[in-house]
Amino acid sequence: MSNKFAIIGGDLRMVKLANHLAKDKNIVYTYGLEEAEESEELKNVENIIICNTLEQAIREAKTIIGPIPLSKDGKYLNTPFSNKKITINNLISVSRTKKIIAGNIQKDLIETAKKEKIQLIDIMEQEELAILNAIATAEGAIEVAITNTDKILHGRKVLIIGFGRIGKILSKKLEGLSCKVTCSARKQEDFAWIKSYGYESLHTNLLGKNLSQFDIIINTVPHLILDKEKLEYVKKDCLLIDLASKPGGIDFNIAKEKGIKTIWALALPGKVAPDTSAEFIKNIVVGDGAF
Amino acid sequence: MSNKFAIIGGDLRMVKLANHLAKDKNIVYTYGLEEAEESEELKNVENIIICNTLEQAIREAKTIIGPIPLSKDGKYLNTPFSNKKITINNLISVSRTKKIIAGNIQKDLIETAKKEKIQLIDIMEQEELAILNAIATAEGAIEVAITNTDKILHGRKVLIIGFGRIGKILSKKLEGLSCKVTCSARKQEDFAWIKSYGYESLHTNLLGKNLSQFDIIINTVPHLILDKEKLEYVKKDCLLIDLASKPGGIDFNIAKEKGIKTIWALALPGKVAPDTSAEFIKNIVVGDGAF
Amino acid sequence: MSNKFAIIGGDLRMVKLANHLAKDKNIVYTYGLEEAEESEELKNVENIIICNTLEQAIREAKTIIGPIPLSKDGKYLNTPFSNKKITINNLISVSRTKKIIAGNIQKDLIETAKKEKIQLIDIMEQEELAILNAIATAEGAIEVAITNTDKILHGRKVLIIGFGRIGKILSKKLEGLSCKVTCSARKQEDFAWIKSYGYESLHTNLLGKNLSQFDIIINTVPHLILDKEKLEYVKKDCLLIDLASKPGGIDFNIAKEKGIKTIWALALPGKVAPDTSAEFIKNIVVGDGAF
Amino acid sequence: MSNKFAIIGGDLRMVKLANHLAKDKNIVYTYGLEEAEESEELKNVENIIICNTLEQAIREAKTIIGPIPLSKDGKYLNTPFSNKKITINNLISVSRTKKIIAGNIQKDLIETAKKEKIQLIDIMEQEELAILNAIATAEGAIEVAITNTDKILHGRKVLIIGFGRIGKILSKKLEGLSCKVTCSARKQEDFAWIKSYGYESLHTNLLGKNLSQFDIIINTVPHLILDKEKLEYVKKDCLLIDLASKPGGIDFNIAKEKGIKTIWALALPGKVAPDTSAEFIKNIVVGDGAF
Repeated sequence: MSNKFAIIGGDLRMVKLANHLAKDKNIVYTYGLEEAEESEELKNVENIIICNTLEQAIREAKTIIGPIPLSKDGKYLNTPFSNKKITINNLISVSRTKKIIAGNIQKDLIETAKKEKIQLIDIMEQEELAILNAIATAEGAIEVAITNTDKILHGRKVLIIGFGRIGKILSKKLEGLSCKVTCSARKQEDFAWIKSYGYESLHTNLLGKNLSQFDIIINTVPHLILDKEKLEYVKKDCLLIDLASKPGGIDFNIAKEKGIKTIWALALPGKVAPDTSAEFIKNIVVGDGAF
Repeated sequence: MSNKFAIIGGDLRMVKLANHLAKDKNIVYTYGLEEAEESEELKNVENIIICNTLEQAIREAKTIIGPIPLSKDGKYLNTPFSNKKITINNLISVSRTKKIIAGNIQKDLIETAKKEKIQLIDIMEQEELAILNAIATAEGAIEVAITNTDKILHGRKVLIIGFGRIGKILSKKLEGLSCKVTCSARKQEDFAWIKSYGYESLHTNLLGKNLSQFDIIINTVPHLILDKEKLEYVKKDCLLIDLASKPGGIDFNIAKEKGIKTIWALALPGKVAPDTSAEFIKNIVVGDGAF
Repeated sequence: MSNKFAIIGGDLRMVKLANHLAKDKNIVYTYGLEEAEESEELKNVENIIICNTLEQAIREAKTIIGPIPLSKDGKYLNTPFSNKKITINNLISVSRTKKIIAGNIQKDLIETAKKEKIQLIDIMEQEELAILNAIATAEGAIEVAITNTDKILHGRKVLIIGFGRIGKILSKKLEGLSCKVTCSARKQEDFAWIKSYGYESLHTNLLGKNLSQFDIIINTVPHLILDKEKLEYVKKDCLLIDLASKPGGIDFNIAKEKGIKTIWALALPGKVAPDTSAEFIKNIVVGDGAF
Repeated sequence: MSNKFAIIGGDLRMVKLANHLAKDKNIVYTYGLEEAEESEELKNVENIIICNTLEQAIREAKTIIGPIPLSKDGKYLNTPFSNKKITINNLISVSRTKKIIAGNIQKDLIETAKKEKIQLIDIMEQEELAILNAIATAEGAIEVAITNTDKILHGRKVLIIGFGRIGKILSKKLEGLSCKVTCSARKQEDFAWIKSYGYESLHTNLLGKNLSQFDIIINTVPHLILDKEKLEYVKKDCLLIDLASKPGGIDFNIAKEKGIKTIWALALPGKVAPDTSAEFIKNIVVGDGAF
């Protein structure tokens, strides 16, 4: 059964999603993707209508699909492929009673929407998509690590800060590449799991001198961990990778001052695996009664 | 004990090697590296002397270090960082009785040298360096695979053609990234080993229809395997990676015609891990009585 | 700082624990371990006092350590190394206000104790010990599987029912032995994690015909899963291993009727790794302010 | 196409082999298996004829299948399931021009046979069977290690002496169980491979003080390695496992004197995986033109 969707902003995943939805005979209205390299292609795809205004894109659609993450600053939609400025408020007011699906929506916004009977759904609450994202992020981090070092990863000491979804999956993959993996965490339970997977463990609060042993340090915690004092102990030729969204977990200015190579690798799923992501999102959006 | 070396041509590994040797108080004469990005740095390193002629570089040196591989066409030295054309013959005649160390030297050249009492040593005959190279190549191939697909590697079906050093190491690493790995080989013994590592196996001579199941195919065999007939069976959205040196194992023109994305990823160790390689070469060159 | 402990009942872990505590200069009173093979040894250990009555063992002790699990029938203590019948009620009334530590205590008992201000502490609530137990159980299950089949595990299809602690750890270890692992679960979240580890997944509620593909099936769920109807589909030469405590997840009578080899492997941590367990328990009991 | 086989001596693999061959409509004459537990069953299998003399067993058969290994002392056949003493010479003289297949045949015997035009074939020269044997031996060694320690294997330091087939496969499996694996070897090439798999390496000739770090030491080298001097350094609570056939690699008397638990685990494939082995042997024996 075909349907009508509006795709507003977002990264390469949304371009791919438009294609997937159109291929399945759905009508797709897009807005805020016009600078994407693949944008030209979209023009020639049957069932895809590139719109000039937000209103036009949303008018006929039954379901509105916004960016993942919805916004980076809490005000404007995340539109890396567009110069247009679209506020969250504008999106909501134009969409009115229609269902809006997006990712990593701020909690207070969700609550406000609930009170006002707006159907605002965070797709990242779907554990399956969250884990897929963690897999894509882990693969992206590995790509970043290979590209940005002059040495093989094999046999090198890697610290992963934080043992959430990304920490769990990344540690397994790095071990699979014969790295010597240490994970840092804060919860007693996490230490037991880290040990059960065969990795070394450290307490995140006790990072300091022990940082000097690592060749690569990858942060997954979304607040400042590697501050000025801690960076003092990091080796000059260590590679720092920050996977955490703003404000990130590494003091980049200090790291730069010290001449430590630091990569803030954001939005990896959209870069590394937009197609797998798009397929997942499609299945969730089209698929089941969850929505 | 310090020593005098000439480094002639070669890739980033040779730039790194010059640095490592100089840091250890050796005198290093270089020639044929002048276009390297890092070339400017070399100018300021103590103990490194950038020479204007081959003769000047070799005159004072005790050991001559040539490229890995020594040559790509059998006539000229491999000098990706130089516009200068240096023939193998010229290198040998200028070096005279001095020891020349290089990599992947053609066998007939080695034999000729032996007869003429020229000390021409292939560093890649050192198993340790050959395996390091295979590790670096495997990591490079993984980087290429992540970069050139829109999907996660996780869970995808990968075929590795050939079960030599690179095949053995790459299959383990891809399994470590949760790919579903099949290896093709020709020797009965290899099939038993492939099974013992838990991978699926195929006979290289029987590749055909069975190619259609793979999402990524990586060739390591240095002669044509995926010809027109076989490419017929490969999925349109399959990624082909050829790691074999010339002439390679994939018919690139046919692959291109069919719209199958194909990457010929050569010289990965020099790109992915020049520093690890340089350290290994230094240890071999300086280190032990082997030379 | 030395201390006084009573160890009442339990398996080999408690014998080892007595030794470990005594070696650290604690005084240990034991009761209900007299039939253990190692019981003779205990007699000659300094600081261990083997008591003839429950009262004698508890009188001087500050902390009472009961079995893991505390009881198998909800009434009597679990005393595999003793013919003595000790009721839970008796233990509690003799211990009075002293701290009692044991494992897998029934929830209603814990609640009653709380109301009556009795210090009854379940050591298995310590995530670290619970995970250690899962590791020991997984290793024990592997031993059982190797011993009870006439084939190599390598390459065989194994189903693990349930993706809790034991399921997670056992699946990783079986994959490490090159088995082809499928995990069954019920929660959406678990399916995503199973996939993220690279295993196949099945819904526990949908087990049926698909059971016929497995060479080994290991149950970890503590209620009947493989009933008469489901056992119909299991291969005759499949090995069934049940790791779940009573009532277990397999209908043993039906399995026996059908001639399917079935092993109910209980209390593995006490058999496979009593010493590691004892060390852990010691650290928890002696160690920190948690108690 | 059915055929006639004589099975003379051997372990449980030969009992299973008789069954497999008979099930495929071959006629099987057996001699020297009468004490096997499964011997009673054989009596009731169609197509199996239990013979009272060697001559009777061999008379009608086209192919004679002897034990693996053929002999343990170089004189008598290896007949763990029989009290009968059969000399190798006797077997050969009775079999005359018939094809004899057995395993691990002494090299000089093979050579003598060649000269005398006797068809004596060593089935273990088939790489596939040799590797299957190594897999079964590795699984058996893991079973032995779990059974004979009071601690979990997980996280423990294991040394494997020798990096041949068994060393390679066992190290992978122990790593898969989260052990910390060190392999010792003698060849430069092996060190590079050990490193490439991510294990620690030691030179077998330099074992000594460094032995004190290991919790489990597994020998695969068939001559004395752990002599009196070296055993001096082994921890009292280390477990020693010798997988090498006579004379073995550990001085058992000295180890016993020192109170170090030592297991000489021989003939594991016949104990751990007789059925997989029998299937393999059947395929080789029946299967192809190789014989």
